[in-house]
Amino acid sequence: MSLVSSAAVAEHASRDSCWIVVHGKVYDVTDFLDEHPGGSKIILKYAGADATEAYEPIHPPNAITDNLPTDKHIGTVDPDTVVKVVKEVTEEDKRRQALLDARPPLDEIINLHDFEAVAKAVLPPKAWAYYSSASDDEITIRENRAAFQRVWFRPRILRDVTSVDWSTTILGQKSSLPVYISATALGKLGHPDGELNLTRAAGKHGVIQMIPTLASCSFDEILDAALPGQPLFLQLYVNRDREITKKYVQHAEKRGVKALFITVDAPQLGRREKDMRMKFVGDAGAKVQEGQKDIKQDQGVARAISSFIDPSLSWKDIPWFRSITNMHIILKGVSTPEDALLAYDAGLQGIVLSNHGGRQLDTARSGLENLPPIIAALKTRGPWPNPNFSVFIDGGVRRATDVLKALAMGASAVGIGRGFLYAFASYGQEGVEKSFQILREEFEMNLRLLGARNLSELTPDMVDASGLHQHVGLTPPDNLFNTTYQPLRLAEFRDAKL
Amino acid sequence: MSLVSSAAVAEHASRDSCWIVVHGKVYDVTDFLDEHPGGSKIILKYAGADATEAYEPIHPPNAITDNLPTDKHIGTVDPDTVVKVVKEVTEEDKRRQALLDARPPLDEIINLHDFEAVAKAVLPPKAWAYYSSASDDEITIRENRAAFQRVWFRPRILRDVTSVDWSTTILGQKSSLPVYISATALGKLGHPDGELNLTRAAGKHGVIQMIPTLASCSFDEILDAALPGQPLFLQLYVNRDREITKKYVQHAEKRGVKALFITVDAPQLGRREKDMRMKFVGDAGAKVQEGQKDIKQDQGVARAISSFIDPSLSWKDIPWFRSITNMHIILKGVSTPEDALLAYDAGLQGIVLSNHGGRQLDTARSGLENLPPIIAALKTRGPWPNPNFSVFIDGGVRRATDVLKALAMGASAVGIGRGFLYAFASYGQEGVEKSFQILREEFEMNLRLLGARNLSELTPDMVDASGLHQHVGLTPPDNLFNTTYQPLRLAEFRDAKL
Amino acid sequence: MSLVSSAAVAEHASRDSCWIVVHGKVYDVTDFLDEHPGGSKIILKYAGADATEAYEPIHPPNAITDNLPTDKHIGTVDPDTVVKVVKEVTEEDKRRQALLDARPPLDEIINLHDFEAVAKAVLPPKAWAYYSSASDDEITIRENRAAFQRVWFRPRILRDVTSVDWSTTILGQKSSLPVYISATALGKLGHPDGELNLTRAAGKHGVIQMIPTLASCSFDEILDAALPGQPLFLQLYVNRDREITKKYVQHAEKRGVKALFITVDAPQLGRREKDMRMKFVGDAGAKVQEGQKDIKQDQGVARAISSFIDPSLSWKDIPWFRSITNMHIILKGVSTPEDALLAYDAGLQGIVLSNHGGRQLDTARSGLENLPPIIAALKTRGPWPNPNFSVFIDGGVRRATDVLKALAMGASAVGIGRGFLYAFASYGQEGVEKSFQILREEFEMNLRLLGARNLSELTPDMVDASGLHQHVGLTPPDNLFNTTYQPLRLAEFRDAKL
Amino acid sequence: MSLVSSAAVAEHASRDSCWIVVHGKVYDVTDFLDEHPGGSKIILKYAGADATEAYEPIHPPNAITDNLPTDKHIGTVDPDTVVKVVKEVTEEDKRRQALLDARPPLDEIINLHDFEAVAKAVLPPKAWAYYSSASDDEITIRENRAAFQRVWFRPRILRDVTSVDWSTTILGQKSSLPVYISATALGKLGHPDGELNLTRAAGKHGVIQMIPTLASCSFDEILDAALPGQPLFLQLYVNRDREITKKYVQHAEKRGVKALFITVDAPQLGRREKDMRMKFVGDAGAKVQEGQKDIKQDQGVARAISSFIDPSLSWKDIPWFRSITNMHIILKGVSTPEDALLAYDAGLQGIVLSNHGGRQLDTARSGLENLPPIIAALKTRGPWPNPNFSVFIDGGVRRATDVLKALAMGASAVGIGRGFLYAFASYGQEGVEKSFQILREEFEMNLRLLGARNLSELTPDMVDASGLHQHVGLTPPDNLFNTTYQPLRLAEFRDAKL
Repeated sequence: MSLVSSAAVAEHASRDSCWIVVHGKVYDVTDFLDEHPGGSKIILKYAGADATEAYEPIHPPNAITDNLPTDKHIGTVDPDTVVKVVKEVTEEDKRRQALLDARPPLDEIINLHDFEAVAKAVLPPKAWAYYSSASDDEITIRENRAAFQRVWFRPRILRDVTSVDWSTTILGQKSSLPVYISATALGKLGHPDGELNLTRAAGKHGVIQMIPTLASCSFDEILDAALPGQPLFLQLYVNRDREITKKYVQHAEKRGVKALFITVDAPQLGRREKDMRMKFVGDAGAKVQEGQKDIKQDQGVARAISSFIDPSLSWKDIPWFRSITNMHIILKGVSTPEDALLAYDAGLQGIVLSNHGGRQLDTARSGLENLPPIIAALKTRGPWPNPNFSVFIDGGVRRATDVLKALAMGASAVGIGRGFLYAFASYGQEGVEKSFQILREEFEMNLRLLGARNLSELTPDMVDASGLHQHVGLTPPDNLFNTTYQPLRLAEFRDAKL
Repeated sequence: MSLVSSAAVAEHASRDSCWIVVHGKVYDVTDFLDEHPGGSKIILKYAGADATEAYEPIHPPNAITDNLPTDKHIGTVDPDTVVKVVKEVTEEDKRRQALLDARPPLDEIINLHDFEAVAKAVLPPKAWAYYSSASDDEITIRENRAAFQRVWFRPRILRDVTSVDWSTTILGQKSSLPVYISATALGKLGHPDGELNLTRAAGKHGVIQMIPTLASCSFDEILDAALPGQPLFLQLYVNRDREITKKYVQHAEKRGVKALFITVDAPQLGRREKDMRMKFVGDAGAKVQEGQKDIKQDQGVARAISSFIDPSLSWKDIPWFRSITNMHIILKGVSTPEDALLAYDAGLQGIVLSNHGGRQLDTARSGLENLPPIIAALKTRGPWPNPNFSVFIDGGVRRATDVLKALAMGASAVGIGRGFLYAFASYGQEGVEKSFQILREEFEMNLRLLGARNLSELTPDMVDASGLHQHVGLTPPDNLFNTTYQPLRLAEFRDAKL
Repeated sequence: MSLVSSAAVAEHASRDSCWIVVHGKVYDVTDFLDEHPGGSKIILKYAGADATEAYEPIHPPNAITDNLPTDKHIGTVDPDTVVKVVKEVTEEDKRRQALLDARPPLDEIINLHDFEAVAKAVLPPKAWAYYSSASDDEITIRENRAAFQRVWFRPRILRDVTSVDWSTTILGQKSSLPVYISATALGKLGHPDGELNLTRAAGKHGVIQMIPTLASCSFDEILDAALPGQPLFLQLYVNRDREITKKYVQHAEKRGVKALFITVDAPQLGRREKDMRMKFVGDAGAKVQEGQKDIKQDQGVARAISSFIDPSLSWKDIPWFRSITNMHIILKGVSTPEDALLAYDAGLQGIVLSNHGGRQLDTARSGLENLPPIIAALKTRGPWPNPNFSVFIDGGVRRATDVLKALAMGASAVGIGRGFLYAFASYGQEGVEKSFQILREEFEMNLRLLGARNLSELTPDMVDASGLHQHVGLTPPDNLFNTTYQPLRLAEFRDAKL
Repeated sequence: MSLVSSAAVAEHASRDSCWIVVHGKVYDVTDFLDEHPGGSKIILKYAGADATEAYEPIHPPNAITDNLPTDKHIGTVDPDTVVKVVKEVTEEDKRRQALLDARPPLDEIINLHDFEAVAKAVLPPKAWAYYSSASDDEITIRENRAAFQRVWFRPRILRDVTSVDWSTTILGQKSSLPVYISATALGKLGHPDGELNLTRAAGKHGVIQMIPTLASCSFDEILDAALPGQPLFLQLYVNRDREITKKYVQHAEKRGVKALFITVDAPQLGRREKDMRMKFVGDAGAKVQEGQKDIKQDQGVARAISSFIDPSLSWKDIPWFRSITNMHIILKGVSTPEDALLAYDAGLQGIVLSNHGGRQLDTARSGLENLPPIIAALKTRGPWPNPNFSVFIDGGVRRATDVLKALAMGASAVGIGRGFLYAFASYGQEGVEKSFQILREEFEMNLRLLGARNLSELTPDMVDASGLHQHVGLTPPDNLFNTTYQPLRLAEFRDAKL
């Protein structure tokens, strides 16, 4: 490929001829503008210039080369011609840097909520919006958390709990925790090392990571960061072009991935309003000014990265998946006993009761609430637990007690996504390791308090889930009455200033 | 009619002789003062002067000529004598204009709540009070919204949802959405074009508008704004003088209106306190000072416009309606299975489960909650859905998911009133079109996520409505305990100022 | 009785010899100090001085003469010796006067809540504390209100509601409203005319007043203020000295009182903490400084006025009451079907389902909640309604809809206490009349909207009381989660200052 | 023991040689550093110096001599060499002293909440954190309180309640209240006299105190403070070294303790985050600076004092306890009918339905909620109440009505821990006595209002516990709707400034 000067690139800064630089390579994306899943506007902002910084956190490294015909690969930008742009440090950047410097010492982080609070403070607003957002009115994301609090414990006493053990086996792989790292996309928005933070911490502590299709590190980078024999799972968005999917799956199996989690709750990626609102911020500087109608509308990060997902995916495709891989196949995003039985009868190895962290169908029920009827349905196919079929849940998990409730109710293991994501977004790999340590302490404590020495001693009678199905919304308050009512006060100190 | 000078009009500025000018015509309303549904006080404020600005948004154009004997039509005001009043621009006007100028760009409106928030900011206080108010403690208006959130989804997976279709047929008319525009009164309070904003947007996008009896545009203006063949429905308040009603209904049928929605939940219009409180504002400037007892009390806009409604309307009148028109006849405002069956057995074509947007009987239940027992009752008359009888609901709808829940539970289509009203009150016709676009996007997304390719695939098992009937009001909180309890805090940043 | 100079009175300003002046008479209360139900401290504050101002609003006029042996009636204070104390106008007095002057015009009062809000602002703090207080954590007072909001309407349509009628007969007496004025004590704390405000308004509008034993106007003053034939009821606290009670009851019957409501939920008057906290304010100025232990503790107004009540009152006393009067006898303060049947079987004429406005046993259930099982129990004794036995409820009523719910569920009529009390505390007799007018408007409106032309058409199927028995207290919120969760925002205006 | 100069002590101020002074004695704790349950860091802070002030409130006086071999008892510090450290009075100390001075007079304390509010204000932050903290998200501590408010009263009327009596017998001991003082640790954190405040008040008023294993006064100090014959119970944490436990239990029996409450809900002491967060405050001044990894992590006060507790304790140990003592043996911390029956069948004398004040397993249910199924289970073993077996509950009690509810539902008596702790932390012994007086007043009042003359007349039908088992968590609110909705306002005063 030829060397191209920055000046030459800069001449192609219009809708009619649009070149951009990514990782030092020059690409002609003129014809691709209308096909770009994230809209043309965001590309035109970098027309004739270097787009690497915007490209990197939301695209797998090979996205551009995979999608652009080779004749559009213009060449390599001549490094001598690159004017080093002194990156402007904004007030916002300074504020965030100050927050980073003032983070609580990792020692003072004592629960998973703490990571989230730190991440909320130190992440760039777009990253926080992408990670934290959920669909529509964000009812389901909060319900996911609330559901755990409708299940109460019935602890047993006077059992010798000197040693307690919370290790387990997940799809045949040893795990030091009854928890796996669920896939979340675009890790580099939160930390320069992205998903590798998880891979390294997981390897060190015997935890299993599920690699996301939409990782911002490439699949092979992640595999290369794993220890020999470190078990990994793969989350799969199925491509409209099945050959791409087949290649991807078979490559994963070859590299030793143990199980394939096919996402089935996202034929289209959700309308996540926090994410959608973000796109309007920062668009002001778009280089190319055109009539708004001509530029394909931005629709937030989620839409930008997901247009390849195939909405036609159906039960008819399942045999094909079984034909291309010997990995365990699990459906991620099941909500009903009907579909759980279909998965079982299709010969699959498991399901994840998930609503995609509240990011897809709002007011869908929580995985935890769907668990009892689904376990009941699966018991019609044989004893539970069933060594050939696993039921996982994810969504809203913050405490070891949440996990213990799900396990007592029949779940095989529990996925945590955002929890670990916020851990590395706030403290990198060390944050993830600390999150494991917190969970270990909580598991040890709470197994003892429940009177269970290991996970097999967690039994359904240790929880009271009778309130789980109560979807209570309050009737509207009587505002006039409440305004007039004067609440009781406590005894008063003599000096009101104190 | 003779020309009358402004000076001559101004001589009739007392209770004993009261002339007003409306649209350039002079009327003697002295004898009408006590009959004015809105009270004499508001008229006396304009005694001897031009009342057009106050008259226009809350009266159909022909209201005055229809109600005043022709001998009280004094003449035409002599334009040469009119002193152009330089309308004072108040601080309040300026503040509202600034808000209008600063409205979020329409692109940034991403859900129906946004329109309401903009309308709340930019509407004159009286208009906002009239539109947003509901009866008594406004329990029902909020319950209408809350009810939708007591219904949860049970989404199905792995169905090919490449193409999804949310179009439908409502009372034999094609509709691009399973939603119609429900009637709301006095559109000009919100926008100078009033209801025409809805008519034009509806025509362009294949949506059906229900024309309100109390439109501030005249019936024919609205019909004239419709496209050829554009389907329209008519909402009817029945007049004490049935001949007026007959004329009105038959004129509507002649002009092509397809269905008649007779309002049955409003023998008297509700006590809407926000609206009632408004009447006290601005009354200070009343021109004629008299003993308060002598002036018929103002009672808010709602009462002012509704005294013609006949509280004697009863089931006995139904055959007469069937005798005067061949339009479909639907009862709007049904709440019980008993009345639903009466309507069915009376040979009508449908009912709307509605509580008038919470504006009539407070603590009446929501249409959504009334839906399951009513569908169950109608099933005793034959299979459901029944091609000869439709059940609509309205009230509290903000999301496509709300509509999908109602349809899954057996509703034929859903009415949205305030949602579209706020859309044009904030952005005119463009706002209404945008609201259709938002709904389309939400329908597409959520049908896919539910696993339904079209509305007939929406089945009752896709929702969990088991909590719908739970009317939970909290027991009163323990304020002393809550005051004393110190909530947990998160880890602290080192610099508290951050 | 001899004339006594002020100076002579002032010499008796100690615990050893304590004289006070009330209404110009001098009393030696030395021996009475320890017996004073309100404690000795408050009396000692006025030792050797005029106590009339403190005495008046919380004692019936004849309380002191009834309780003190005649030999302790020293004489009449010599008016020539009285130094006119120029009453100091405090800042607090000025603030309250300003609030009184700025009260909303009565025209702008549109519901019963409004009266309460005005009363709260304009009453002296002690009066507000006494009226508004309830027992312990004030759970029941609020539950009384909340219970009405767990009952929902099922309105019927298409009934000719041109004329609606909400008049009724209560214990054989005509009433223009299905509501009576329930007894509340110490009216003069709120308005100089005290209970007479109610008597006069009630007479004018055909409403029945229940006279309280603890009225601050004397019984005969109230009777004298009534119109000829105006029906009145009497609330009775039974005295430890039954002869006093007998005399009181027979005098009432002689003066034409129609029914006797014996309070049975107050063998001892409640611990009302708002009231109790008040006693500490203003005690600073006590004239006699003694060791705190020596002075019987103040215990708020409620205790001060109620020590005569007999805690031994029991079912055994009922025949005696029937022997001393022919008035209807009703038990006020029944909560259980067991006691309702006992009352019925004892030959009484009715019961009031009441918890004393939440002022006695906290976390007792509301009268409304107790209504269905009690009506069910009474149906075992014959058809309901029963012409020989009435069931009333009181507590928490603010709206005509509350009353209509209770009537539909079987109540004979409904008592309102604080509602009318606040009406005269804020606007005197005119306030009470306005409160009747508001109720009339609400009754007219809501009977029409329910489809009931009169009270006999109010049927149980018009309400959905299925949620009434749900005593839901929320599980504690997850504060860390809620702190971290970032709620959705609406679209933003361009200028944040607006 | 030899005299040691302060200078000589100061030379041993490192990890390699660490001496400390406690109560004037010098100890070499170098080898003990790693074994210290509270971590080495806190000791190293006082290396070479006097640690008495930090030692005292959280260790029984003999803790150091019991744990350190005698050869590490170096000698007595030479008093002449001690440099009197002028204790710095910090701003925080001054603020707290000012708060202490401004406490509400004890007369104005009218309920148990008041003590808590005062204690919260006047306690050092570490003490408040230790006392008030509970585990994880502090759901259970609040649920304990909330549960009482899901039980409602059904009061009976017209019973002669002239005399009411709330005294009882607890495990054969007379008690003036149906309440005992439950064990809480480390009383000296709150008041210099620590647990003795309780002992003295209990003796004076005929109330039974349960002595905590982790008292900050020694067991014998407490016994010595008791009156002759004053009944006392003992709470027991079982030591890993059973001989220590045996000696302790037998000593207690010899000194006349009547019953042994073995804690069974704490094989390990809970993660109490408020307490954990506190350890980070004030650690800055640690004298010895070392790499953080080398110093055993502090883990809050709870962990520091509890490492001796034996997690192996099991049902197998019960016969041994019965063999070493003739005291009544009660298990404290039972939650299930299964374990209640095991305790009964093991021949024990009772159980406490407790979750350790919410300090152990979070989202465990409340003792009150566990009461009905446990009483039902025990009824399968014979009539209830059973003279040989008692069921107590504790947690969240603030009112006599709470106690009466538990008793009506079958409990034998109720324990209050924090309530009395806060009473002495705010006002010493007088506070505890006042708390008894408040309870007495509340018992008298509420027994009368319930229609029960004594505790045996409290019957199950006097409460409605049907809502007790409802664990209702709200579905997440619709924030956009709530933001947009404009609540009703009351009538406005004319002058907005008022």
